[in-house]
Amino acid sequence: MPGIGPRTAQRLALHLLRQPEEKIRSFADALLAARSQVGQCQKCFHLSADPICEICKNTEREKDLLCVIADSRDLLALERTREYKGLYHVLGGLISPLDGVGPEMLMISSLVKRVDQEGVREVILALPPSVEGDTTSLYVSRLIKPFAKVSRIAYGLPMGSELEYADEVTLARALEGRTTMD
Amino acid sequence: MPGIGPRTAQRLALHLLRQPEEKIRSFADALLAARSQVGQCQKCFHLSADPICEICKNTEREKDLLCVIADSRDLLALERTREYKGLYHVLGGLISPLDGVGPEMLMISSLVKRVDQEGVREVILALPPSVEGDTTSLYVSRLIKPFAKVSRIAYGLPMGSELEYADEVTLARALEGRTTMD
Repeated sequence: MPGIGPRTAQRLALHLLRQPEEKIRSFADALLAARSQVGQCQKCFHLSADPICEICKNTEREKDLLCVIADSRDLLALERTREYKGLYHVLGGLISPLDGVGPEMLMISSLVKRVDQEGVREVILALPPSVEGDTTSLYVSRLIKPFAKVSRIAYGLPMGSELEYADEVTLARALEGRTTMD
Repeated sequence: MPGIGPRTAQRLALHLLRQPEEKIRSFADALLAARSQVGQCQKCFHLSADPICEICKNTEREKDLLCVIADSRDLLALERTREYKGLYHVLGGLISPLDGVGPEMLMISSLVKRVDQEGVREVILALPPSVEGDTTSLYVSRLIKPFAKVSRIAYGLPMGSELEYADEVTLARALEGRTTMD
């Protein structure tokens, strides 16, 4: 399991062995229940126990604004900001020819269909600043442009950072992506 | 001295004591020469041995583009990107009422004068993303706007980072500062 090395694994195993049997049984049942009940939202492909997730169901959210992310962890990160009020679309990964991931393996055609059919006004690409992220952003933006405005989250200096310690590529992107002050 | 703790200081001192006397003398002379010869460029206030620095003298650079930075270290960071071809203006710090630094203690009035008199087309504010940086950007932009276009470097995700590990404020700024894809 990610982040669990041999020593931590041993500590957890010994801890579990010390628990009463009914506690272990309910833990095992919870794991099985989670595995069988948590699926994907049929609209946005976020993790969900229901066919349509809580975010897609929420009538308070802006229906004509879609934020495209690589996976559910990124969606949770954006939700923590409490700034975004639109809906999401989880691609399920990034285009990566080296890893054998082509566009047809991601939820891209369903995204285009959604944008076309649901009258989406703007699609915000919130993919990570990397070769795979940039490739995927470019690919998706070409398909979406006939239907809606396409924007990309800003790449630049993170909050609290200093120019002096920023790497050259980040600084160059921050210069290139400068915005007019109004 | 910054970054030199007691143990490093002792190591350096003992190393110096083991050197031949003429070597120490030439080191001391070099320090005195640097202190007496390195001053500030009269135009941009970058460190310079001459009254006008190498960057301001360079006729290949764009004269109508000014990048405003807090200090010379930030200028050197931007030069390392090899992307920026305009001139600079070093403020000498940031507005910080808590530290007793007011706008009159920075090279702001000379900046406004330069923009007005030298026909500057655009001023890029490259100040750090912090309370002091934002305050200074806002103050300077109000003074410059009557004379030239004012822009600000992008604040957002640094290169190679992941959304999942970005702090909330950086993510919120990246969303807010999104740019249209073309």
